[in-house]
Amino acid sequence: MTAVHIAQGVVSVRDIPKIRKRPRGHALLRLVAGGICNTDLELQRGYYGFLGIPGHEFVAEVVAADSSEWIGRRVVGEINLACGRCDWCKRGLGRHCPKRTVLGIVKHPGAFQEFFTLPEKNLFRVPDSVATDHAVFTEPIAAACEILDQIRIAKGKRVAVLGDGKLGLLIAQVLALHGAEVHQFGRHANKLAVARKLGVTAKVGAPKSGTQFEIVVEATGSSAGLAAAIGMTQARGTIVLKSTVHDPAPIDLAAVIVQEVTLVGSRCGRFAPALKLLKSRRLNLDPMIDSRFPLAEAPRAFERANAPGVLKVLLDV
Amino acid sequence: MTAVHIAQGVVSVRDIPKIRKRPRGHALLRLVAGGICNTDLELQRGYYGFLGIPGHEFVAEVVAADSSEWIGRRVVGEINLACGRCDWCKRGLGRHCPKRTVLGIVKHPGAFQEFFTLPEKNLFRVPDSVATDHAVFTEPIAAACEILDQIRIAKGKRVAVLGDGKLGLLIAQVLALHGAEVHQFGRHANKLAVARKLGVTAKVGAPKSGTQFEIVVEATGSSAGLAAAIGMTQARGTIVLKSTVHDPAPIDLAAVIVQEVTLVGSRCGRFAPALKLLKSRRLNLDPMIDSRFPLAEAPRAFERANAPGVLKVLLDV
Repeated sequence: MTAVHIAQGVVSVRDIPKIRKRPRGHALLRLVAGGICNTDLELQRGYYGFLGIPGHEFVAEVVAADSSEWIGRRVVGEINLACGRCDWCKRGLGRHCPKRTVLGIVKHPGAFQEFFTLPEKNLFRVPDSVATDHAVFTEPIAAACEILDQIRIAKGKRVAVLGDGKLGLLIAQVLALHGAEVHQFGRHANKLAVARKLGVTAKVGAPKSGTQFEIVVEATGSSAGLAAAIGMTQARGTIVLKSTVHDPAPIDLAAVIVQEVTLVGSRCGRFAPALKLLKSRRLNLDPMIDSRFPLAEAPRAFERANAPGVLKVLLDV
Repeated sequence: MTAVHIAQGVVSVRDIPKIRKRPRGHALLRLVAGGICNTDLELQRGYYGFLGIPGHEFVAEVVAADSSEWIGRRVVGEINLACGRCDWCKRGLGRHCPKRTVLGIVKHPGAFQEFFTLPEKNLFRVPDSVATDHAVFTEPIAAACEILDQIRIAKGKRVAVLGDGKLGLLIAQVLALHGAEVHQFGRHANKLAVARKLGVTAKVGAPKSGTQFEIVVEATGSSAGLAAAIGMTQARGTIVLKSTVHDPAPIDLAAVIVQEVTLVGSRCGRFAPALKLLKSRRLNLDPMIDSRFPLAEAPRAFERANAPGVLKVLLDV
């Protein structure tokens, strides 16, 4: 069967033996569609010393499972494989389980292959009313929804979102649908149009000098974004950090302390709120799909995803 | 009258005309004792392009005031002079008033002179049971208490305090008296003994590799402290930032985001809780006083305060 492989920065396609066995409690899944995420591009660049099969944004069909009701279902899946027994897991925070592996990222082969496995408890059925091309966004939408699990954002609250990449666009939409007054700042007029459709005030460039926000979401994907975020956050305000940049970023500690700003690191989120939003069909996802490639052409797909200004690249089977 | 002056990194003593007039609503104060804070040392190094009379940690006697009940009272004072009319002031957060001046720091002559003025609404009477040498710590104790206004720390909660400078020692004591299980890490056995008297577990060096805390207070005064703090904070934990270092500090954003750590900038605090603690006489302050100099010998006092490992240097009149 076809599997995408990353080794030393090179994306290749290999023909590997079809997976036939599944660990107890795991479902055997057949990939329907995959989405290339910035994390995949970072894995390609050597982040985590990654070597193996990537892929964690997916829609799949269940081929085999312990519970027969899963068979044939179209599913998405929580990417963190948690132990289920530690204090984190007991608190419902398996995403922070210290023993976790992570689909296509940490010690669990990813979804960019024809067949792969995931624990049944990680699976979520995709509602019939949600198109596969939209469901493939479930994981990054969950990451956007995570913000609402971490900090309180009242309806009507002015919130700034920095960045108009894939995650920035989903965050702006999720917060707008939550009822916030979202002001998005980015670099690309065409991308900013995506969230504007949901009432987001989107602007190319920086806010007017002196404009300040109580809540700023930093999703530029660049270490320079943090300095910009600090400059536009009011005293006692909150900055949500969404850019997992791997070079040390400079931070003006004096400004953060004098202004008593709070910075909140934010990563993966729960799938349930994301699926609820998808079911509402209020997200503007179609313009976020840049292109699609067959799984066998993954190297070209990664090349396209790495090009500047490109939004979501899908892999089809 | 004698006044301390800072210009271009040089501390001098000048004889200036005695202040006789006071703005309406301001009290005329006679300095009894002052404390040299790290911020004063930073002003000396050119922070804020400071030029003028420093001093914001003080005990004074009221010489003249609109309300006659203040006359002759021994007082300490909130250092932020707020407008009293803006939204911040209305919320009781004059410490963040955008129009504020700050005693001895921003556009208001400081306390290191024989006479100075401060709004009467900024004054707090020092209880008779509190010695002047202890009351002079009110402002930094309030800064330590600020942590408890910003984040919830349950009784018995394990908290790490990094740094054994003046502020680190006060923070460790305040949190211990609050009921937290405080683990302090520093560089000087003699300093760490101060908070140990209040039951703090104090250790020279870093915690054992792998030891993690849900709450870490970073008070090393060095930009390297932040990296250490991030390394010892557990997932979803909180780091309180107390080191107002002025060089950009490098931050491992990926670690903060993957672990979903929260960082909280923390500066000045309310005086009332600090005075309550002083009145309880449970703080161990005497060993924190390194030396005392007459106001007229301020240059020597600053020289001493700048020496490595020195705790509080007092100025007497």
